[in-house]
Amino acid sequence: MSKKKGSRVERELFHMFWEEKNWAAIRTAGSGSTTLPAPDLIVGNGSRVLAIECKSGNGRRDINAKQIEELKMFSKVFGAEPWLGVRFDNMPWYFLRLENVSKTSGKNYFVDKKTALGKGIGFDELVGKFKQKKL
Amino acid sequence: MSKKKGSRVERELFHMFWEEKNWAAIRTAGSGSTTLPAPDLIVGNGSRVLAIECKSGNGRRDINAKQIEELKMFSKVFGAEPWLGVRFDNMPWYFLRLENVSKTSGKNYFVDKKTALGKGIGFDELVGKFKQKKL
Repeated sequence: MSKKKGSRVERELFHMFWEEKNWAAIRTAGSGSTTLPAPDLIVGNGSRVLAIECKSGNGRRDINAKQIEELKMFSKVFGAEPWLGVRFDNMPWYFLRLENVSKTSGKNYFVDKKTALGKGIGFDELVGKFKQKKL
Repeated sequence: MSKKKGSRVERELFHMFWEEKNWAAIRTAGSGSTTLPAPDLIVGNGSRVLAIECKSGNGRRDINAKQIEELKMFSKVFGAEPWLGVRFDNMPWYFLRLENVSKTSGKNYFVDKKTALGKGIGFDELVGKFKQKKL
């Protein structure tokens, strides 16, 4: 995935939260250019705060263990729920709790369409519009 | 104040929060380049979230009413305390609640050294290290 495309899907999600009216969202600066952890988006609605790392692409995406650890650390200190947001081509957004992100044979993580569909929740469920039934 | 200097003081404050160990901070992207409100910094410690607009310079700084309104709106929706952080040359940081920011003769606002010293609190008090006595 190009950096440009990553920014594009981040902006898409950023606007989706604002369109909900009861959520405020910010995109972070310095992700990648600072040694301190910075999730891509941080959003709040007055009672919940979500820290979201976004991944997009056409298929499987590998995720460095360090990035997951940093998202956990940031969320714990800040007081936010850590989430992985995935936006595969021609699919809507899916959101995974970190315990549902698959591990590679090494110490890293990955997300693919199967995991997103099987263990992720959609945007409406994330923002609490309804609780999706898992069959 | 130059944009560069604004960034420098923002980064200074960003690092001050991280150095506290129990606070996580992020700098926002798109402040100024999006029509949606974005405070310069958003910080949290697991129980409080602060949305901070930063001003720096050598003397009085005027602040557009729109910027204050946006900080209020953002903070209300997100669930954050709105603060104005001011860093005048050769002075430490002072933080003002919005009700303590002075109004100009028009509909705008301003902050100067006198207001900062008289109505602001210091960094240690902001992060709850101690409660400064107002004499």
